Amino acid sequence: MQYPEPIAKLIDSYLKLPGIGEKTATRLAFFTIDMDENDVATFASSLVSAKKDLHYCSICGNITENDPCVICVDKTRDQSQIIVVEQVKDVMALEKMREYHGLYHVLHGVLSPIEGKGPEDINITSLVKRLQQNETVKEVILATNATPEGEATAMYISRLLKPAGIKTTRLAHGLSVGSDIEYADEMTLFKAVEGRQEI
Amino acid sequence: MQYPEPIAKLIDSYLKLPGIGEKTATRLAFFTIDMDENDVATFASSLVSAKKDLHYCSICGNITENDPCVICVDKTRDQSQIIVVEQVKDVMALEKMREYHGLYHVLHGVLSPIEGKGPEDINITSLVKRLQQNETVKEVILATNATPEGEATAMYISRLLKPAGIKTTRLAHGLSVGSDIEYADEMTLFKAVEGRQEI
Repeated sequence: MQYPEPIAKLIDSYLKLPGIGEKTATRLAFFTIDMDENDVATFASSLVSAKKDLHYCSICGNITENDPCVICVDKTRDQSQIIVVEQVKDVMALEKMREYHGLYHVLHGVLSPIEGKGPEDINITSLVKRLQQNETVKEVILATNATPEGEATAMYISRLLKPAGIKTTRLAHGLSVGSDIEYADEMTLFKAVEGRQEI
Repeated sequence: MQYPEPIAKLIDSYLKLPGIGEKTATRLAFFTIDMDENDVATFASSLVSAKKDLHYCSICGNITENDPCVICVDKTRDQSQIIVVEQVKDVMALEKMREYHGLYHVLHGVLSPIEGKGPEDINITSLVKRLQQNETVKEVILATNATPEGEATAMYISRLLKPAGIKTTRLAHGLSVGSDIEYADEMTLFKAVEGRQEI
């Protein structure tokens, strides 16, 4: 005997999600059957709506319902700074800080020769165009991850923009706030010593 | 800035699933946006259909599209045996074995004084009724889990059925096939020795 078709189909759908295997998918499917009917209906409609109503902002690449996104449209934000990030989620992380009021640019990836990702595969061209059309931008802050790929991407963009006379900066590397020196890795410690500041 | 509403709603929906926290829900929601449109549509419709089209079989409590379920309806199956299990998933596990051709009865839980679950909270009454109405049943095989609650439930049902003269049996306890004696726990070893068989 197989599972009845509706549940077999639902298990298949859950299986397509990342990090979810056969057992978890089955557990989630059975959980769904016992869920409140309204919750299931909301879940189904959110799935469709998230796919249908969300787009990438044509200016910065952030995810949005309306194009351009709320950040690009907001003229009270500092138009002289752009933070360049790898993913949409990074925009949210930086926004949670509540200390930055400039603009963003989402690359949707990093340069990665191993994965065959070159400059044309990520959102770099649109960044260059944006800077050419917009002379209010004084500083581009490169906030790609502190990984080899992130560093290489930051380096590439910085070299690309330098001839145009735009200031490019990189987020500081160092000890995480609240962390122990004892447990920091060598590279982090090295960066922390290198970037030491007078107090 | 908050996430746009469609994605915030989708994150909320994923959060309602068991074992999925804020980070995973966000990751799944972003994954959904990059999924194939047809896959998302199928996912959404399977959710609704699993909730709407599936019911519990009025005879055995198994999950089914049509009532009674395919197992109860199938007259070629051995009508003299009923395996009593805790959950629908256990029926599937036993069916995968392909060696049992009798009927099932799903309790949808176990007796658990800690969680306040008594005999009236699980599917026991319907089992008794089923046995009263159906004199073809010669043996009830209690296949509740090998946990204290499962054991107690099996014991309870066996005492309930004994006066009616129905043979009740319990699945054998012992070493898992392919397992090492070295790693078996004391209770399992004890049950394995106790239940030893002549070869």
